[in-house]
Amino acid sequence: MGYTVAVVGATGAVGTQMIKMLEESTLPIEKVRYLSSSRSAGKVLQFKGQDVTVELTTEDSFDGVDIALFSAGGSTSAKFAPYAVKAGAVVVDNTSYFRQNPDVPLVVPEVNAHAMENHNGIIACPNCSTIQMMVALEPVRQKWGLERIIVSTYQAVSGAGQSAINETDHQLRQVLNDGLNPKDVTAEILPSGGDKKHYPIAFNALPQIDVFTDNDYTYEEMKMTKETKKIMADDRIAVSATCVRIPVLSAHSESVYIETAKVAPISEVKEAIANFPGVVLEDDVANQIYPQAVNAVGSRDTFVGRIRKDLDQENGIHMWVVSDNLLKGAAWNSVQIAETLHDKGLVRATDDLKFELK
Amino acid sequence: MGYTVAVVGATGAVGTQMIKMLEESTLPIEKVRYLSSSRSAGKVLQFKGQDVTVELTTEDSFDGVDIALFSAGGSTSAKFAPYAVKAGAVVVDNTSYFRQNPDVPLVVPEVNAHAMENHNGIIACPNCSTIQMMVALEPVRQKWGLERIIVSTYQAVSGAGQSAINETDHQLRQVLNDGLNPKDVTAEILPSGGDKKHYPIAFNALPQIDVFTDNDYTYEEMKMTKETKKIMADDRIAVSATCVRIPVLSAHSESVYIETAKVAPISEVKEAIANFPGVVLEDDVANQIYPQAVNAVGSRDTFVGRIRKDLDQENGIHMWVVSDNLLKGAAWNSVQIAETLHDKGLVRATDDLKFELK
Repeated sequence: MGYTVAVVGATGAVGTQMIKMLEESTLPIEKVRYLSSSRSAGKVLQFKGQDVTVELTTEDSFDGVDIALFSAGGSTSAKFAPYAVKAGAVVVDNTSYFRQNPDVPLVVPEVNAHAMENHNGIIACPNCSTIQMMVALEPVRQKWGLERIIVSTYQAVSGAGQSAINETDHQLRQVLNDGLNPKDVTAEILPSGGDKKHYPIAFNALPQIDVFTDNDYTYEEMKMTKETKKIMADDRIAVSATCVRIPVLSAHSESVYIETAKVAPISEVKEAIANFPGVVLEDDVANQIYPQAVNAVGSRDTFVGRIRKDLDQENGIHMWVVSDNLLKGAAWNSVQIAETLHDKGLVRATDDLKFELK
Repeated sequence: MGYTVAVVGATGAVGTQMIKMLEESTLPIEKVRYLSSSRSAGKVLQFKGQDVTVELTTEDSFDGVDIALFSAGGSTSAKFAPYAVKAGAVVVDNTSYFRQNPDVPLVVPEVNAHAMENHNGIIACPNCSTIQMMVALEPVRQKWGLERIIVSTYQAVSGAGQSAINETDHQLRQVLNDGLNPKDVTAEILPSGGDKKHYPIAFNALPQIDVFTDNDYTYEEMKMTKETKKIMADDRIAVSATCVRIPVLSAHSESVYIETAKVAPISEVKEAIANFPGVVLEDDVANQIYPQAVNAVGSRDTFVGRIRKDLDQENGIHMWVVSDNLLKGAAWNSVQIAETLHDKGLVRATDDLKFELK
């Protein structure tokens, strides 16, 4: 016997990777169900070589589902995740909708798996750019404390979905094959599908991911600030981010500056990071060894390198953090949450429904 | 009557732009001479529609030259710039070779033109990534003081020369047209032509520009630290940089975090930057207005936006700074130095040769 696992948003860029992670998972899976919007319902996908027809997501889709992985946008999670919980499933939600809800643990398993102990049916998976930073910094926080983070990201287009990948490919061809000036290519998706203006990403760097908030930071940037505090359970950690999209298909890179509470010797920081689960130390500049996006694609790990002291601040450390945004940043972290729930005996129905049925 | 202007390294990516900047310059130019290594000598280039044959650079090349613009690598400047000075020319050197020499002013004209007053025949043009940061920050430094800079760069491949541009183009075609995995493309130049290993830049972000120094920072990063202190004539300014190459052909972007000595209201910072020469304020996030590399290409200006308070540090400010690395970052800043020398009556021979003839 095993679980029935539903994947909501199965045809998307993250959903595709979730299926792959489930195929390779240690979870006892008896059955999978693929759910989507009406646009993709009826398509036939695979699970371990077997055909699985994609079904339309409805309020009644979750009967008999034990674990539901959501990655179909915040509005889909808002609408259907409570019905999944009501039907007895545990939801692992990869959207931002429930992340700041006090009834919802926000989890990076290596960092705060304990936060799931008393879950209410929904576990939120953090934003991709936050997750990789958390696994890199948690070993440092545990030993020396963490007072401050300044991060500038170099984010891949796959974080904005398959349409953004297609757009990037098309724009590059317009420049390389058709001779267009990069500023004149067709732009309809990035920087944010939900915003008014769209700009080229080919041969460009766009300092906007998601839309802007009232404080002149983007939602993406504020996710890194708020999610860090929640995951590390410490509101005093100062986090300011600059989130930038670059013409890379997959794997986010991050230039991370931190200030620790106690001064941390660099050799010990490297050792702590190397010994932390989910993290690979790639740091040997004499031999030009440092993390690179192209090498991280397809790996569940987060790669950390370029670790060095700030030139002036005694408790300041710089590092370079790279991970596959579709895997540790989304699909793998979600499936890893499901595996951890299973390992801890937490795949169970909830009696007291804390989430509004809409 | 006018000047004889020599361009050393005339056939390179920067040299080509130097010629264009000279064609559009207000300098009274009577004659240009194009100099290069033996590999390019004999080629025929243009100046304002006239043919100019490229000559081999020798110790005797500079007779009759008034202004010599060097951009052919540090070793060429080391060898030939002193001969140019000896022959009576003023050298504007775009390489790093003389930048930290105490007898050589390091100049961004908008920031420290005064440093040229008592020059000894060589003026150094700073590194591209430093220059654009200097014009963005000088108006802030003047009004509120500048204590600290943390910068992460997003640098274009043209900074590594024409061969890096060609390599990027080729790698993108290998992925898009031949279906290669980005990690398997041909890499022979980047991250640094002078280093042992070479990595893909297509669909990648490389946290190495130039080679590494003993302190685990790269030379490029240390240039930003040392040059900032020299240009702003203040060794107390703390500067730590992370320099990263991304698959953009031209225009560097920078995520710049600063701490000012006095707390600076953001509206006044924007006003000061908008009023500073050489800088264009592009900052209206409600309308998605911010600097972009593709829009900066071909402009002499530096574009600044995303100016906002740090979320925790009262004197902390973040901003996004973009400029064409071949123009303000190299060719235009060099020609602008020459124009400023002319305006100040400083195009003159030097009696006392301070530089070793090799």
